[in-house]
Amino acid sequence: MLYLIGLGLSHETDITVRGLETIRKCKRVYLEAYTSILMAANQESLQKFYQKDIILAERELVETGADSILVNADTDDIAFLVVGDPFGATTHTDLVIRARELGIKVETIHNASIMNAVGACGLQLYNFGQTISLVFFTDSWKPDSFYDKIHGNRKAGLHTLILLDIKVKEQGIENMARGRLIYEPPRYMNIATACQQLIEIEETRKEKAYTENTPCVAISRLGSPTQTFRAGTLKELSEYDSGEPLHSLVMLGRQVHDLELEYLYAFVNDKELFKQQVVQDQEFFKPPPYVAEEEEFSD
Amino acid sequence: MLYLIGLGLSHETDITVRGLETIRKCKRVYLEAYTSILMAANQESLQKFYQKDIILAERELVETGADSILVNADTDDIAFLVVGDPFGATTHTDLVIRARELGIKVETIHNASIMNAVGACGLQLYNFGQTISLVFFTDSWKPDSFYDKIHGNRKAGLHTLILLDIKVKEQGIENMARGRLIYEPPRYMNIATACQQLIEIEETRKEKAYTENTPCVAISRLGSPTQTFRAGTLKELSEYDSGEPLHSLVMLGRQVHDLELEYLYAFVNDKELFKQQVVQDQEFFKPPPYVAEEEEFSD
Repeated sequence: MLYLIGLGLSHETDITVRGLETIRKCKRVYLEAYTSILMAANQESLQKFYQKDIILAERELVETGADSILVNADTDDIAFLVVGDPFGATTHTDLVIRARELGIKVETIHNASIMNAVGACGLQLYNFGQTISLVFFTDSWKPDSFYDKIHGNRKAGLHTLILLDIKVKEQGIENMARGRLIYEPPRYMNIATACQQLIEIEETRKEKAYTENTPCVAISRLGSPTQTFRAGTLKELSEYDSGEPLHSLVMLGRQVHDLELEYLYAFVNDKELFKQQVVQDQEFFKPPPYVAEEEEFSD
Repeated sequence: MLYLIGLGLSHETDITVRGLETIRKCKRVYLEAYTSILMAANQESLQKFYQKDIILAERELVETGADSILVNADTDDIAFLVVGDPFGATTHTDLVIRARELGIKVETIHNASIMNAVGACGLQLYNFGQTISLVFFTDSWKPDSFYDKIHGNRKAGLHTLILLDIKVKEQGIENMARGRLIYEPPRYMNIATACQQLIEIEETRKEKAYTENTPCVAISRLGSPTQTFRAGTLKELSEYDSGEPLHSLVMLGRQVHDLELEYLYAFVNDKELFKQQVVQDQEFFKPPPYVAEEEEFSD
């Protein structure tokens, strides 16, 4: 049996009791270690807590040699650990499909991920549209397909969860060209960079999906002991020192419920100012007034 | 301290290790028992597993007397347990806001909820639009505000998670009128009812948000030992016997990735037929071909 086990957001103890019991009976335990990190734990502390050795499953292993993970999984119990939920922001459907082809049973033990825990910022999950990802821009590569998705959400009045780029175990271009498995230091996009990039794309595209005065919520280290929320405009948050990773950003939709606004007040210094900013954004993006179509009369 | 603790989807052991440790140190433990249920556990089995007494927090208690939950929470540790995640489909932001007003600290221990675990059906969370809720229709009350939301998602090519009505501890109209705290037997909407209601509203509204041939995925008892997925058209699933609760439904968006389709094949009897249904739905809902605007020449 292949067990896909979610580790939750931060601590060793964020694993479920069922997940922990399962790991302890497994013959091999892999940890997917290239798309996210546990904020208050590491491989060593996990091994100690699980009383099990952990094999780091790096990108090369999962993408090129998933079969080595699945060796004997028809008879042995194998655990594949994923930060957050196994079907969270990054999914492992290809591993499951491969297991199926080999006749290996798969069981998932779910956990929290940013995709549902984002509700902790006080905005209702019902009022979110499509989730988007923002990657680190380079001088020559500034992918902006997220812009239309934000625009779609905003037109519908919905909030947008924006996941920020994580570069762990990335080869530099030179090392990749030379075939050297030497990695860049890990990089985690912070709130200021994310907001600057968002403002840059609005200045390029000019389709008014949002403005630099659009209110957002910065979510830092969600679920960890130093979890922090900060609400403000894109412009304000483009100068915000968000501290240690991980971070996510939510851009508010036009429809903000009173209870949502009330909740966000805990994350600002000046309630009145923030309320004005929310109202101004709503006014600015208000749908045009309804104009009745001309009636058509038949001859 | 008030701890909001998610219980996950099904088993007693779906609680996180940190959640369990926290419950055991709390002076009072409340279980929110009116918006969802744990499928493979009950109050008695939870009490035994936690080695703690549990106070059932029914709707009246939470909505009218939240303060009794918060008594002494400035000095004592109080746990408020919620099936899924505390900020999942049903949120408890009002309880947190009330605690803040009373100067009581709040900590959340997250867990899986349908809002992220739905990824287990193989559809990517990135490709979902707004989540909607479907309530039981009566002869005189058939609220259809969900229809425009599905339509919005479908226009954008996105999947829609449809949460199905749960009626636990509901007073009947007569008992409510007479002020009697007598409750109706619990009711959980099944897949067939959900699909019939969706078809009914399309037949009324006729705006072609979807057709009875639109492909959907029925998700039953997610995360429980009898978890079941079934893919088919709305029409097919309107006759599907989905068994014991709980159920959710996903309506596919126009954009279905090859890997998503491949994953869904495990949930159908006839792969070729299902593929045809998906392609037909995509064709039917294809955006109209692009027509270039007439160029404007200046004089």
